[in-house]
Amino acid sequence: AGGRAKRARSQKPCSLKELEVTVTDLGLGYESEETVLFKYCTGTCEAAAKHYDKTLKNMRKNKMIKRGKDRPCCRPLSYDDDVSFLDNYHEYHTLKELSAKECGCV
Amino acid sequence: AGGRAKRARSQKPCSLKELEVTVTDLGLGYESEETVLFKYCTGTCEAAAKHYDKTLKNMRKNKMIKRGKDRPCCRPLSYDDDVSFLDNYHEYHTLKELSAKECGCV
Repeated sequence: AGGRAKRARSQKPCSLKELEVTVTDLGLGYESEETVLFKYCTGTCEAAAKHYDKTLKNMRKNKMIKRGKDRPCCRPLSYDDDVSFLDNYHEYHTLKELSAKECGCV
Repeated sequence: AGGRAKRARSQKPCSLKELEVTVTDLGLGYESEETVLFKYCTGTCEAAAKHYDKTLKNMRKNKMIKRGKDRPCCRPLSYDDDVSFLDNYHEYHTLKELSAKECGCV
């Protein structure tokens, strides 16, 4: 269970996961024990690599290009509805684009 | 100009760059001296971080979540037309989705 074991990759394809957390746990600076269902995108996108990605990877390897994201990202394609909550000071807040609705390799 | 200088980040916002290269340079396994204009996306997407990204970043920091892309990626929003070329053996090939047409933070 050292640093070496961590490097093994057995990730599943890009998909939506969810976790119930308190608003405080979101780490956005609000204090509230109200819970929200936080949905996020995680997983691999290797199967989605296009000629574009393969070329960028080769050209970075050959130092013809310095930077550029050479593999698709597992990201939200759309976001859930706004989330509203009362904080511990009885103030009402609304957060936009907090939680993913749908994921994809982009 | 050692390893340290490399770490300084002064990247521009996500945008399209281009480079004229030979088909051989694409590294896709084709041998041809024909040139193509390879257009790719590069640059930062920090300004595009949403509540989603900030939350994911905090939750990864606090080990509540293991993985998940916590910042937007600078990626093609659309791709250029197919690219056709003759290789050194006089065979004709067409490559789809080789070059970016438009970039964005996704």
